[in-house]
Amino acid sequence: MTDARLADLADRLPNLRLLTDPADLEHYGRDWTRRWTAKPLAIALPSEVAEVQAIVRWANEHDVAIVPSGGRTGLSGGAVAAHGELVLSLERMNRVLGFDVVDRTLSVQAGMTLHAVHEAAKEHGLLYPVDFAARGSCSIGGNIATNAGGIRVIRYGNTREWIAGLTVVAGNGELLHFNRGLVKNSSGYDFRHLLIGSEGTLGVVVEATLRLTNPPPPSQVMLLALPSMDAVLEVFALFRARLSLQAFEFFTDVALRHVLAHGAQRAIEGDHPYYVVTEFDADEAAQEAALATFELGAERGWISDGVIAQSEAQAAALWRLREGITESLAPHRPYKNDISLRISALPAFLHEIQALLEREYPHFEVVWFGHIGDGNLHINVLRPTELSDADFIAQCEHVTKLLADTLQRHGGSISAEHGIGLVKRPYLGCTRSEAEIALMRGVRQVFDPKGLLNPGKLFE
Amino acid sequence: MTDARLADLADRLPNLRLLTDPADLEHYGRDWTRRWTAKPLAIALPSEVAEVQAIVRWANEHDVAIVPSGGRTGLSGGAVAAHGELVLSLERMNRVLGFDVVDRTLSVQAGMTLHAVHEAAKEHGLLYPVDFAARGSCSIGGNIATNAGGIRVIRYGNTREWIAGLTVVAGNGELLHFNRGLVKNSSGYDFRHLLIGSEGTLGVVVEATLRLTNPPPPSQVMLLALPSMDAVLEVFALFRARLSLQAFEFFTDVALRHVLAHGAQRAIEGDHPYYVVTEFDADEAAQEAALATFELGAERGWISDGVIAQSEAQAAALWRLREGITESLAPHRPYKNDISLRISALPAFLHEIQALLEREYPHFEVVWFGHIGDGNLHINVLRPTELSDADFIAQCEHVTKLLADTLQRHGGSISAEHGIGLVKRPYLGCTRSEAEIALMRGVRQVFDPKGLLNPGKLFE
Repeated sequence: MTDARLADLADRLPNLRLLTDPADLEHYGRDWTRRWTAKPLAIALPSEVAEVQAIVRWANEHDVAIVPSGGRTGLSGGAVAAHGELVLSLERMNRVLGFDVVDRTLSVQAGMTLHAVHEAAKEHGLLYPVDFAARGSCSIGGNIATNAGGIRVIRYGNTREWIAGLTVVAGNGELLHFNRGLVKNSSGYDFRHLLIGSEGTLGVVVEATLRLTNPPPPSQVMLLALPSMDAVLEVFALFRARLSLQAFEFFTDVALRHVLAHGAQRAIEGDHPYYVVTEFDADEAAQEAALATFELGAERGWISDGVIAQSEAQAAALWRLREGITESLAPHRPYKNDISLRISALPAFLHEIQALLEREYPHFEVVWFGHIGDGNLHINVLRPTELSDADFIAQCEHVTKLLADTLQRHGGSISAEHGIGLVKRPYLGCTRSEAEIALMRGVRQVFDPKGLLNPGKLFE
Repeated sequence: MTDARLADLADRLPNLRLLTDPADLEHYGRDWTRRWTAKPLAIALPSEVAEVQAIVRWANEHDVAIVPSGGRTGLSGGAVAAHGELVLSLERMNRVLGFDVVDRTLSVQAGMTLHAVHEAAKEHGLLYPVDFAARGSCSIGGNIATNAGGIRVIRYGNTREWIAGLTVVAGNGELLHFNRGLVKNSSGYDFRHLLIGSEGTLGVVVEATLRLTNPPPPSQVMLLALPSMDAVLEVFALFRARLSLQAFEFFTDVALRHVLAHGAQRAIEGDHPYYVVTEFDADEAAQEAALATFELGAERGWISDGVIAQSEAQAAALWRLREGITESLAPHRPYKNDISLRISALPAFLHEIQALLEREYPHFEVVWFGHIGDGNLHINVLRPTELSDADFIAQCEHVTKLLADTLQRHGGSISAEHGIGLVKRPYLGCTRSEAEIALMRGVRQVFDPKGLLNPGKLFE
């Protein structure tokens, strides 16, 4: 421990786990983006709130920047430490703090994985409904920092809807308790909601009180093959009007090819450009309604083929076709777009953007998938093996600017659920006005006067 | 128009409706609280967003404070203009701007009444689910400013959950569009949620995009008589576990006496200290479940009597027993407490507070009612006719301080849904820490550097 600042930190907190080994610095200094070289000062792994406060106070005295860190499954560089920051990992703070059967709330430390939260809720016969593929690695603190969405938003909304209370260490080390689990609380500005989605720039989330709900009724999972993107939107409207949807996810034949190559099982024969995995409540009436709706969609030419899961194993196999996509693409170092629009704005936008991508990316493989029922599209561009990362990213960023301008005209957002981080920072101005960004800077200054919490993320 | 500032405003906006008649100043200068003497400079009734912006710019140049004003049904003095402010009434901006069938959103101007919003949603076969007794007079902008709750929160949540987009004029006159109707948008701080509940101190809400939902399934309304407050909580747990509740409201025999005297019809004979009006989804299974649950509650001694509505007219009559309370108390100039706790904290708190009120208010009539399923209690203290308003309020405020201290110990809030305004300002520190209040002041400064928007509300 040659760094004087670290020596001082170790002096103040003799029990604090501090890592400076190069392998640890790399491991904790980056997220699922691979664009930046990790270069943190050190990794601190506090085991309690008081240690987090002491670390933040220490950082203020030494002017050390802090990168709050959860599961580092982020796709926007929000947890990257590339400039000598102290990584403040919450991973050891991963316990359940309490469950209240009357309030139906689960209080947890921020470092718990989403999967562990699911399991803890299940133990009490209840559901924490936010869910997505990174559940086994991502932390609830990180979910809160990006207002994570995922595959059940159409039924349950985003992370935001499930946070009844937040405990936060502010930029000056002060401990703040926002909302304290109340259902109704009209006592001034609701900073809980300001913190949600703030990507670690306003405070370090150390604990959260999560609202739980009843498990969903039994459900059915269906895979559909469709002839066009327009058909995907038509079928969504059809299903939404007739069934109680829990999920409605789409992907393209290109996505299917990758996920099949990665070990998933084909469920529908033939070539179809688009696919949908949908899950809906399955009482007896719904079974009939689902078949009738399927037939109606087929008659109108919007559905080419389909299969309904006959067992939980089959349901899981159908879901794998959708959920395995991100992992199957990872070896291709994809350039990721995570955009959203009002659903009503999708048809016109898609028309325009498909033409744009065909024109700008004639040689790149482009993979579309996402949460169409929320207006959220993931557009992944795969890196051709002959291109260097740097050249590839440079070419993609040129197109992202065009994409962002198009989004702006259609009232969309450059980030639906991944956050802005470092990756989308150049395009923030296409979604938020200059006046809004100025307000963000001002608010940031109020919460973190020295600008030490995750500096450079969201905005410079 | 002798005031030079007003003359300048009239010059800039020749079409702006400006009122300075004393009757208008009084009418628009106060809300449902009657504690302050209205003393506004004038009333401006803009008809479009550009006029609102021009008014705010004018106010900045002349250092005139602005009180944004909706239906003025508030109970915390949030819309009171007692110090020469310009009242900026949104009441002429009361149009539907658009409906989108795909997004299921209704875009409205802020001056629409809640009732008009309900009707507009109904026209499209959909529901805007926030609801409470002041629906005919209160404005949607005011609902947003206090994150209004009401009688359906147990099913649908507060106003916050239904706001997909907000258009706001900031303290410098700049027009801001927050979230623009998106379902998912992780692009920096969500100022929409910061504005909701900010009581006009951060910006003037001029337009909102409201999310609509399916109308609820057919429901049944039941009135229950109960022997104790503990029984109310037990019966709530019983009903919540077995039925799909839309509402669960309680009131006391004292409240019943007032509402009967005000013209409502008695529905249960005999003397019972507590009553509950509950509404729940009523398919066939639910009918049986409701009866079985009722009988279980009766067996356990928690329910003394009950009646289930056999028609819509009966359902309305049962609801009137609960919804008529506020109006029936108004002639008694009640001192209103609007508090909330975690439901799990209610029993211990109630035990303590009932003793406190009996000790402190031996000679006052105290009326309890509220949204017990949200942990929200309304405690109204009625003014004895022999006491002056000033003496009565002074005595009540002494008790409110004790109540606020008790709330603080139990983790509750001094305002569940009425807001802080002027009435609860002295007690804000019992619900929000000094550090939080300092952050609020800081954020306020960012949005409204000259502090001209509703100054003195929330905090001094």
